Amino acid sequence: MAPQLDGYFKQVDTLSSHFIERLRKAVAIPSISADEERRPDVVRMGAWLADELTALGAQVEQRPLGRQPGKEHLDLPPVVIARYGSDKNKRTILVYGHYDVQPAGKEDGWATEPFDLTIDDKGRMYGRGSTDDKGPVLGWLNAIEAHQKAGVDFPVNLLMCFEGMEEYGSEGLDDFINAEAKKYFADADAVCISDNYWLGTEKPCLTYGLRGCSYYSVELSGPGQDLHSGVFGGTAQEPMTDLVRILGSLVDTDGKIQIPGLAELVAPLTEEEKSLYDNISFTMDNLYESLGSQTSIYPDKENTLMGRWRFPSLSVHGVEGAFSQPGAKTVIPAKVIGKFSIRTVPNMEPEDVDRLVFKYVDEQFKKLGSKNTMKCTLQHSGKWWVASPKHWNFSAAGKAVERVWGVKPDLTREGGSIPVTLTFEQATGKNVLLLPMGSSTDAAHSINEKLDKRNYIEGIKLLGAYLHYVAEEPMTS
Amino acid sequence: MAPQLDGYFKQVDTLSSHFIERLRKAVAIPSISADEERRPDVVRMGAWLADELTALGAQVEQRPLGRQPGKEHLDLPPVVIARYGSDKNKRTILVYGHYDVQPAGKEDGWATEPFDLTIDDKGRMYGRGSTDDKGPVLGWLNAIEAHQKAGVDFPVNLLMCFEGMEEYGSEGLDDFINAEAKKYFADADAVCISDNYWLGTEKPCLTYGLRGCSYYSVELSGPGQDLHSGVFGGTAQEPMTDLVRILGSLVDTDGKIQIPGLAELVAPLTEEEKSLYDNISFTMDNLYESLGSQTSIYPDKENTLMGRWRFPSLSVHGVEGAFSQPGAKTVIPAKVIGKFSIRTVPNMEPEDVDRLVFKYVDEQFKKLGSKNTMKCTLQHSGKWWVASPKHWNFSAAGKAVERVWGVKPDLTREGGSIPVTLTFEQATGKNVLLLPMGSSTDAAHSINEKLDKRNYIEGIKLLGAYLHYVAEEPMTS
Repeated sequence: MAPQLDGYFKQVDTLSSHFIERLRKAVAIPSISADEERRPDVVRMGAWLADELTALGAQVEQRPLGRQPGKEHLDLPPVVIARYGSDKNKRTILVYGHYDVQPAGKEDGWATEPFDLTIDDKGRMYGRGSTDDKGPVLGWLNAIEAHQKAGVDFPVNLLMCFEGMEEYGSEGLDDFINAEAKKYFADADAVCISDNYWLGTEKPCLTYGLRGCSYYSVELSGPGQDLHSGVFGGTAQEPMTDLVRILGSLVDTDGKIQIPGLAELVAPLTEEEKSLYDNISFTMDNLYESLGSQTSIYPDKENTLMGRWRFPSLSVHGVEGAFSQPGAKTVIPAKVIGKFSIRTVPNMEPEDVDRLVFKYVDEQFKKLGSKNTMKCTLQHSGKWWVASPKHWNFSAAGKAVERVWGVKPDLTREGGSIPVTLTFEQATGKNVLLLPMGSSTDAAHSINEKLDKRNYIEGIKLLGAYLHYVAEEPMTS
Repeated sequence: MAPQLDGYFKQVDTLSSHFIERLRKAVAIPSISADEERRPDVVRMGAWLADELTALGAQVEQRPLGRQPGKEHLDLPPVVIARYGSDKNKRTILVYGHYDVQPAGKEDGWATEPFDLTIDDKGRMYGRGSTDDKGPVLGWLNAIEAHQKAGVDFPVNLLMCFEGMEEYGSEGLDDFINAEAKKYFADADAVCISDNYWLGTEKPCLTYGLRGCSYYSVELSGPGQDLHSGVFGGTAQEPMTDLVRILGSLVDTDGKIQIPGLAELVAPLTEEEKSLYDNISFTMDNLYESLGSQTSIYPDKENTLMGRWRFPSLSVHGVEGAFSQPGAKTVIPAKVIGKFSIRTVPNMEPEDVDRLVFKYVDEQFKKLGSKNTMKCTLQHSGKWWVASPKHWNFSAAGKAVERVWGVKPDLTREGGSIPVTLTFEQATGKNVLLLPMGSSTDAAHSINEKLDKRNYIEGIKLLGAYLHYVAEEPMTS
């Protein structure tokens, strides 16, 4: 039967100003993980979060992660882990979020002070970290507080894992999760991560898949040092000439990857899966708006969503070592490194992708007949992730969305990767759900990041409702 | 008859320490024209040079060139012009040099302080500007002084034009030369520029040709802002994909330009010209040494020299707007600008080159069927230059080389451009000779720039001897 949530919802509304003040306090701490000088602020943010959790009655620990690799003079900020409730008769849900943020400064073009939460007349709450990911993290805390103040029993045991290095590669986190999977996180029955976004601005979604990413470098070198094109042009084979030819052979304008064998690794599209795309709330105008142009590969929604979610793509990101400034410089660069990456999907095994990429790039280079030296290497790879949306974890979330927002959520995948998702799945062996709070226009990582007040407050209701439905779901898998 | 030069030569040897001290003083002034903060040093250098010339009895003027285009708060450094002698019975030679230098700092990897002339046990005089172009500029001053102290009549009237912006595009100089061609420079019978280098380290040369340079940008744009490859990869046509395909279509690994019609513009190679290359003092090992590798296009000297001097070449310099840092960034750049240039030779008219380039790039872009926007533009162009090495100006210099160095000079061209050469030729209508002082290992523009003491002292003799032979040459052309 449907849980009684009215008292909880009402309390959330009553406390909404208080919850916004809590977000304001969090945004005011510039916890930029990429900036060495801001490391004390990241640590301060973790401590503030731990204090808030403690005040709410959670058992909290700040776990050190050691020194930062490559910057050994710096301590990594601690992981804040917490438990709220330990009733053996309740399900235990493990939630993840991060309390660090992307860099931001007024000089980047922000319309407001990025670390001063500013609410406009449309209820848009501007501030760095508002939507990524302080709003969602505080959502869990707010849900606990609203239950307490409404006198509603908290329906599950909540395990929390909040890190402070997400925007800088989640340094140290994988090892931590793996180490604690059968210890601190041992009770978890399922995992919920709120760190992504709706596909549009009106309809909530549950996310059950992410593409992986394999990132490559192609290094071309020849001369011992950069050369002057007047003196050496026409006498030396130029690494940059070879590199642009290789980069130009990888993919065509319509995104068709030219590497033989790669398409064959992709899971075939079934009729059932194909039929899912039609109902999803998304239009080409949504795409054009976010692109800022009409330069799409496909003219239709279905192919566009499949191109983003369930087919691989290849992007050329740039060239290191060549002339990259404005103006003109007549240099023949001695060593240039092209960067490209492939977004991967089921069932592309990263090792197979590497093998096919290396073979193809090698063949393209050999065709050039060059005396230069070519080296193609994998910089990093993260695997794709797909969960079963039929699991009770997803059913519960679906019902919560219907209760709070009055619509069935879209079941979506994403084109990008959130590596921690796969880590949690593999370490705990449990179903992982991505349950976003913010919308597609929130501009995470960009200037003028915001979270709509509506998404924040209804989002708090949603997180709480999700836990109630979780408690009622039959044990299916 | 051969001029009596022994007294002059002896005096140069006697004064060699004094001349090295003069160079030391000049090098000590960090007259970096590209560095706004060093502008007062550039001005100081010009004033010092003017003072030295005045002390030698020359009539000197420091001519202002107005504000620096694009940096209107900065005055351009003055052109130092001077006249030494005005005997109507003598020939008048106009010489050019520059008193500004490339940037330099110990932190770039210099083994010594770049603005502290440091002489090693092999007589290599290290210091920024030693060879480019303070050594040669002072060569003319030293020649005057040695004549005075030796009591030898100065054989010509000398007009001097020394600028302070050569390393930053010679801002304002063309207009100045054109304006003064029929005024201050009106008497000039020929022009001599000492601002280039021997082909190797042992044999002097006279240079009678330079390639031109036409520098292009290809701009590809589509999305309104940079995109995340996870979210948009596979749905948007990527400007970088189009750009690398276009850049990859321009030239092949062996330097063959793929633009139809370009090769047809090149003056045919005559048997007479071809025969000249055989005697030139140059080996493939010289090339390999300066390349720092064996990645040459040709295996032989003749084709290599022709590839450098008398055939066009195309170099891809880099990409602006793409990811160019070390590491990995999953960006789809919204606007990328590829840079390439073509070194031009007789009889390629710059307008014809532009037309063929634009047409070809446009065709390549159309082939892609892209919705992105492409714009190919000329950034700048400078025309090639070829002089007649049979003119008395060259004969005189050839005899002076034989007298000072005991060998006939190589007659060379260069792959790079020295735009002022063509400006002087066109403005004055007179023969222009390039008479280098330094050798191929001097590392102008690089760290550890040097001028060999031998090249400096014998170079002073050479410049003086050249003026004596000029005075004796019959009026041929």
